[in-house]
Amino acid sequence: MSLPTSQTLLVTEDKGILHITLNRPESRNSMSLQMVQELQALFTWGAENHIRAVVLRGAGGHFCAGGDIRDMMTIRQQAVENPHAYQNFNRTFGHLLTQVNSAPFLVITVIEGAVLGGGFGLTCVSDVALAKADAQFGMPETRLGIIPAQIAPFIVQRLGLTQARRLALLGMRINGQQAQAIGLVHEVYADNDSLETALARTINDLRQCAPNATQVTKALLHQVGEQPLNQVLDDAAEAFACAIQSAEGLEGGMAFVQKRAASWAQ
Amino acid sequence: MSLPTSQTLLVTEDKGILHITLNRPESRNSMSLQMVQELQALFTWGAENHIRAVVLRGAGGHFCAGGDIRDMMTIRQQAVENPHAYQNFNRTFGHLLTQVNSAPFLVITVIEGAVLGGGFGLTCVSDVALAKADAQFGMPETRLGIIPAQIAPFIVQRLGLTQARRLALLGMRINGQQAQAIGLVHEVYADNDSLETALARTINDLRQCAPNATQVTKALLHQVGEQPLNQVLDDAAEAFACAIQSAEGLEGGMAFVQKRAASWAQ
Amino acid sequence: MSLPTSQTLLVTEDKGILHITLNRPESRNSMSLQMVQELQALFTWGAENHIRAVVLRGAGGHFCAGGDIRDMMTIRQQAVENPHAYQNFNRTFGHLLTQVNSAPFLVITVIEGAVLGGGFGLTCVSDVALAKADAQFGMPETRLGIIPAQIAPFIVQRLGLTQARRLALLGMRINGQQAQAIGLVHEVYADNDSLETALARTINDLRQCAPNATQVTKALLHQVGEQPLNQVLDDAAEAFACAIQSAEGLEGGMAFVQKRAASWAQ
Repeated sequence: MSLPTSQTLLVTEDKGILHITLNRPESRNSMSLQMVQELQALFTWGAENHIRAVVLRGAGGHFCAGGDIRDMMTIRQQAVENPHAYQNFNRTFGHLLTQVNSAPFLVITVIEGAVLGGGFGLTCVSDVALAKADAQFGMPETRLGIIPAQIAPFIVQRLGLTQARRLALLGMRINGQQAQAIGLVHEVYADNDSLETALARTINDLRQCAPNATQVTKALLHQVGEQPLNQVLDDAAEAFACAIQSAEGLEGGMAFVQKRAASWAQ
Repeated sequence: MSLPTSQTLLVTEDKGILHITLNRPESRNSMSLQMVQELQALFTWGAENHIRAVVLRGAGGHFCAGGDIRDMMTIRQQAVENPHAYQNFNRTFGHLLTQVNSAPFLVITVIEGAVLGGGFGLTCVSDVALAKADAQFGMPETRLGIIPAQIAPFIVQRLGLTQARRLALLGMRINGQQAQAIGLVHEVYADNDSLETALARTINDLRQCAPNATQVTKALLHQVGEQPLNQVLDDAAEAFACAIQSAEGLEGGMAFVQKRAASWAQ
Repeated sequence: MSLPTSQTLLVTEDKGILHITLNRPESRNSMSLQMVQELQALFTWGAENHIRAVVLRGAGGHFCAGGDIRDMMTIRQQAVENPHAYQNFNRTFGHLLTQVNSAPFLVITVIEGAVLGGGFGLTCVSDVALAKADAQFGMPETRLGIIPAQIAPFIVQRLGLTQARRLALLGMRINGQQAQAIGLVHEVYADNDSLETALARTINDLRQCAPNATQVTKALLHQVGEQPLNQVLDDAAEAFACAIQSAEGLEGGMAFVQKRAASWAQ
């Protein structure tokens, strides 16, 4: 099945890994409604086509500077006739964040420049976040008289309430190193070469991991806290029994005994 | 409406910011029942009068060394006749912590010296905690044969279970830098001048943020985890629509387009 | 009551502290079903005999390298007749983790070498984790085509979802310093002498703390998030009233006033 076409994104596929570049550099890749919808289509396609990972980054030296101003003006006109226009517009971004957060494959963000509002939110739902040390992260919403709405739950989940409160309520910016210290990103690099090397290593790591086992593990981790502990453990035992008796489990065991790479790692 | 009077606190107001100093230096500002009640009255007054922030600190080089010994002796006498005396006394402090935690304005703690027991708990419910590097944080309760009771949930929420377990179960002290490493405080400074500079910057930051948007955002962050994700996102979209169409949202948008400071930031 | 006998563990008792060494160095102390059952028996014995702490470590330079391969082969044969064989086997380890996590005494892990899979999980349920800087932590399960099943909830609780996702989904290893940075362990040391000194200090710290107060505090911390905040605070107030009027509370208060060590600290 061929890739969905995009006007706001650059997309290439390489052996099961989808490389997506937010491509509206003239507005520092601010998140337009069209971009949200094109990302949703790609994540749906990726799930249907059993890709291993999405690598998400921005064109022109910035990751994503937040919401799009022109969209806002359009919605303002619609709101005259449709009282739910703002609400629907805002909620759509939450659907994207939910979809990215629970994607059945890895999501890796490669981060530089401005990471504001919605860009901050996207960072919070990635499995692995690699950043430049001089990237600028922030939630400027309250300085504009509005609120960090759809990103709020994902920020609390990522940073805990303590750091979320300070950053959302002061609206100031932090750099990559500060972002790493509070758990927003995992790795920080001073220059682009080191960042690309870290990405290559991360891709190599994820290729060592069995695709179905990865998907089941990611779903299991998200289940924690949603259900009572004993229920999670019971479900986990059942998922373990399935995994070890699956084709992947058998191949993984054989490869280990035979001291060779497993089929999915080649 | 004039400020409530206090015997245990020094209070001044400066352009919507309430500066509260715990003022019982002879006992390192240990938290007496009277102090608890006077703090409750001030936080209630602050909510009713739409202040922007409380800045909380201690007189005489210490933040707060925990519960008050004299109160304990009084309660011991009361307990002879009233079997619930200890329970009621202890629970009152939890009401204060709940009130501070969910105050509809920012709470900034400026921390030095002893930060023990209840003082540790107050730190855990502040939005921004600025500390001296040589401050001493600890939960000595179990060393005294008692337990960190009302502060327990706020400590777990602040630090996570891992750090909470170690600190509560060993009863030892950590300094400001260790407190920052585990997310108890946000910023640490070696000397008083740097600490005051950081406070001035924090106050400047919060003045850039719209008051209502700040209040709504703080409430939204606290809602996370209390309700299912989709419910939080639906409510957030509704709050976003309200905010952007409010006087603050319109002023914020206009100030942004006109490249000037918003009315609340002046 | 005498200690249960063990074939896979070395066990000594010293003034209320149980020192347990995983003792299958030929397989880097991989967690066999027998070892799981012997640990369960010791933790049950410890609770019944009111010990103060368990100190858990591994023989031969490694903590624990995960599940036992020979057990796996045995289960594979059983699974031909019993479709629940894998599930039951896996679930048993979750029962151990639950028991260790909520043990009514302190659990201290002393960590070096390989800390993989189940060893990683055991680290996550310890109250105090002291590690060598060059210890190697990892969840290699998905590289073997299987999943980190029973340890999943304890890892999310310990590290948060962000770090849990990266480590479980990439399957790579981190060292002691990286483990400390993400909150997996509390203290890290370059050499064995420093590690033993830290253990001695930790044991000294826990001896300062009243045994019953410690048990009640640990249970209270675990209750947070399981019940509504007000319920936790009400229960905490009741537990406080019990503690302060107990023999420990009276002795703790007297020792404080008389400026002497409490009876349990001697």
